[in-house]
Amino acid sequence: MIDPDEALQLVLENAKPGQASRVPLDEACGLRLAEAVRADRDYPPFVRAMMDGYAVRSEDAGRAVIIAAQVAAGREAAVRVAAGRCAEIMTGAPCPPGTEAVTAKERARRDGARVVLPEAIAAGDGIAAQGSECRAGSVVASPGERITPLVVAVLATVGVRTVCVLPRPSLAVITTGPELVPPDRQPSTAQIRDSNGPMLVAMARGMGLPGPLHLHADDTVGAIVQALQRASDRAIVVLTGGVSEGAYDLVPKALETFGAEVIFHKVLQKPGKPLLFARKASQLFFGLPGNPLAAHLGFHRYVAAAVRRMTGEAPAPEPSLGRLAAPVQADGQRTRFVLSRARRDPPDSTGWQVHPLNSATSADLFSPSGANCYLWVPPGERGLEAGAVVPFVWIGDAE
Amino acid sequence: MIDPDEALQLVLENAKPGQASRVPLDEACGLRLAEAVRADRDYPPFVRAMMDGYAVRSEDAGRAVIIAAQVAAGREAAVRVAAGRCAEIMTGAPCPPGTEAVTAKERARRDGARVVLPEAIAAGDGIAAQGSECRAGSVVASPGERITPLVVAVLATVGVRTVCVLPRPSLAVITTGPELVPPDRQPSTAQIRDSNGPMLVAMARGMGLPGPLHLHADDTVGAIVQALQRASDRAIVVLTGGVSEGAYDLVPKALETFGAEVIFHKVLQKPGKPLLFARKASQLFFGLPGNPLAAHLGFHRYVAAAVRRMTGEAPAPEPSLGRLAAPVQADGQRTRFVLSRARRDPPDSTGWQVHPLNSATSADLFSPSGANCYLWVPPGERGLEAGAVVPFVWIGDAE
Repeated sequence: MIDPDEALQLVLENAKPGQASRVPLDEACGLRLAEAVRADRDYPPFVRAMMDGYAVRSEDAGRAVIIAAQVAAGREAAVRVAAGRCAEIMTGAPCPPGTEAVTAKERARRDGARVVLPEAIAAGDGIAAQGSECRAGSVVASPGERITPLVVAVLATVGVRTVCVLPRPSLAVITTGPELVPPDRQPSTAQIRDSNGPMLVAMARGMGLPGPLHLHADDTVGAIVQALQRASDRAIVVLTGGVSEGAYDLVPKALETFGAEVIFHKVLQKPGKPLLFARKASQLFFGLPGNPLAAHLGFHRYVAAAVRRMTGEAPAPEPSLGRLAAPVQADGQRTRFVLSRARRDPPDSTGWQVHPLNSATSADLFSPSGANCYLWVPPGERGLEAGAVVPFVWIGDAE
Repeated sequence: MIDPDEALQLVLENAKPGQASRVPLDEACGLRLAEAVRADRDYPPFVRAMMDGYAVRSEDAGRAVIIAAQVAAGREAAVRVAAGRCAEIMTGAPCPPGTEAVTAKERARRDGARVVLPEAIAAGDGIAAQGSECRAGSVVASPGERITPLVVAVLATVGVRTVCVLPRPSLAVITTGPELVPPDRQPSTAQIRDSNGPMLVAMARGMGLPGPLHLHADDTVGAIVQALQRASDRAIVVLTGGVSEGAYDLVPKALETFGAEVIFHKVLQKPGKPLLFARKASQLFFGLPGNPLAAHLGFHRYVAAAVRRMTGEAPAPEPSLGRLAAPVQADGQRTRFVLSRARRDPPDSTGWQVHPLNSATSADLFSPSGANCYLWVPPGERGLEAGAVVPFVWIGDAE
């Protein structure tokens, strides 16, 4: 059996960044760029008026000058600014040749066809020189850069309509377990409704993965293999249940039949010791236990790490530090991961108090459903004491 | 003119939480619940085996007992566990009547049709009592609670297929500006490509808003009013450009013609002084300047706050604290908002160093496109010095 850090390392070694692909710009936000993008021309592409006012020569400061033309944004200036003559101009319009400055409207006094300029006009005031923001041919976005809305604006500006990115992997969830019924069926006394399917699909959607597929397989090797075949175009397949060593634990057998190689099976962690990770060419398989707490941890810690590696992100979110609100027991040989709720401590500070959310049973999802983070307790005899400063990782937004 | 805090306050006063509506559970993740949800039955609904093993009486500890039945998950147990008799049982299966404990397979020794039990068996070991995780009728999720994947799992468990939530508002972006051409057209020397449209749509999508609409209106009151009419089913309309006081600044006039009431126009901030906010019944209108830096700040600070209020979230993200890497000048009467990049300081600590990203001109989007946060400089003569500890708010993920 390996420990959770070794397990994470093996997942990351086997999850390769996906093949770069070209997508429309409006689908690229949040992804990482896989190419360098250069400016198609200077920006501004012309000498740009930065305010509504008058395009003037600085030597005309203090004088009344003739308004020779009006220049609107989007139009070529069909006039020349010379001594004694100016152009009325709008923000964003190209300054006519000869312009040395744009004087703001409120600094000048209009007098019919003339305008009286202020006493001091410095050359360059109120204008942005051509190329002053960005030179034609210079790199405006680099490989590996995350495409934020600001980067979208830059790319749109330079005429990019499709970009080469590291796409998000496709994913399928295959639930198993003869006790599970789908949400639209009334369970018998011995049955329960499937909660892992909806939860894992929500986690995949939360990471922006495109249209996660959810299949349920009966508890036979044949049915599981059939589901694996239906999911064979998915980069990641997450299976739940059937991963222990009981007579009904058929996922390892089904993966073997399907031709996948098991990288590891069983991790020294609680919950989710029977975790299985397998690979077939570049396709990755995660066998998560059916226990919903184990399935949540399995996706949060291992599947999400693979997704981040494939999209060029740092493999794990940075932990925060907080003060433990209550003691947490250790679990001997296993690392314990505990769903918890971090709260501001005190509410107006930047510190966090971390409240471990205890489950009534090892599969109880009700008590910890308000969790926003995980803390962990290293293996050993001693747990963590209340007041200890501990690292934790967010699973949702702070409140 | 009002200051940025008053402006934000006015936006929040006019943005009411949307009318609660019922959506399918698989579209609800990330939203806030607008109803209480109760458990439809006890959980577990039966005495559940927590491991693969043998359902036994504790008095049989140390004895060889007959395996009277096999109980799989999902099936009723058609047997009774009595002294000298046990049932082989799978994780998740209902324990037969009479069961006092489930002994793990690996703690017992199988001997044909019998099994030799360990020396000590405590009643309750290896089983979860009916209702021990949650009682029928108890509240499992409350109004105002955010629907995380864990909550999705809880709701799916208790049979919820649709939930009453505060939905995300619909939004339209109307860009104006005669110098703008859409991304698929080659701009003339005097024209530039529209970048505000794609940027604002990306920001709206980033907040999960459903299918943001993007319209471009020519610079006439009639064209802008027509676009407002096309967007009349949208809860929020964001206009860019045409909001100053020039002859071509027609947005205020168009909004008046459309019947919207201006709540404020002009805010003591940089960038984005001409910001306009208007309302018509419950429909909100934000007139953002055409300058892309001003448009970004306008969405980040005001539009996003309205969206958060309407979806029941805290109106503003909590600021973080960081150490300023370079001085930043103040702007007299206006509060300056500066796109910046926060980095770990040092990389392995939990502190942040905040690098203000200076623009070459007041409309330059290229230099600050790598920003991940905003810092702000209060009005006054004195700016902020390098090394000062300053609050900042994230606009994207930390790295």
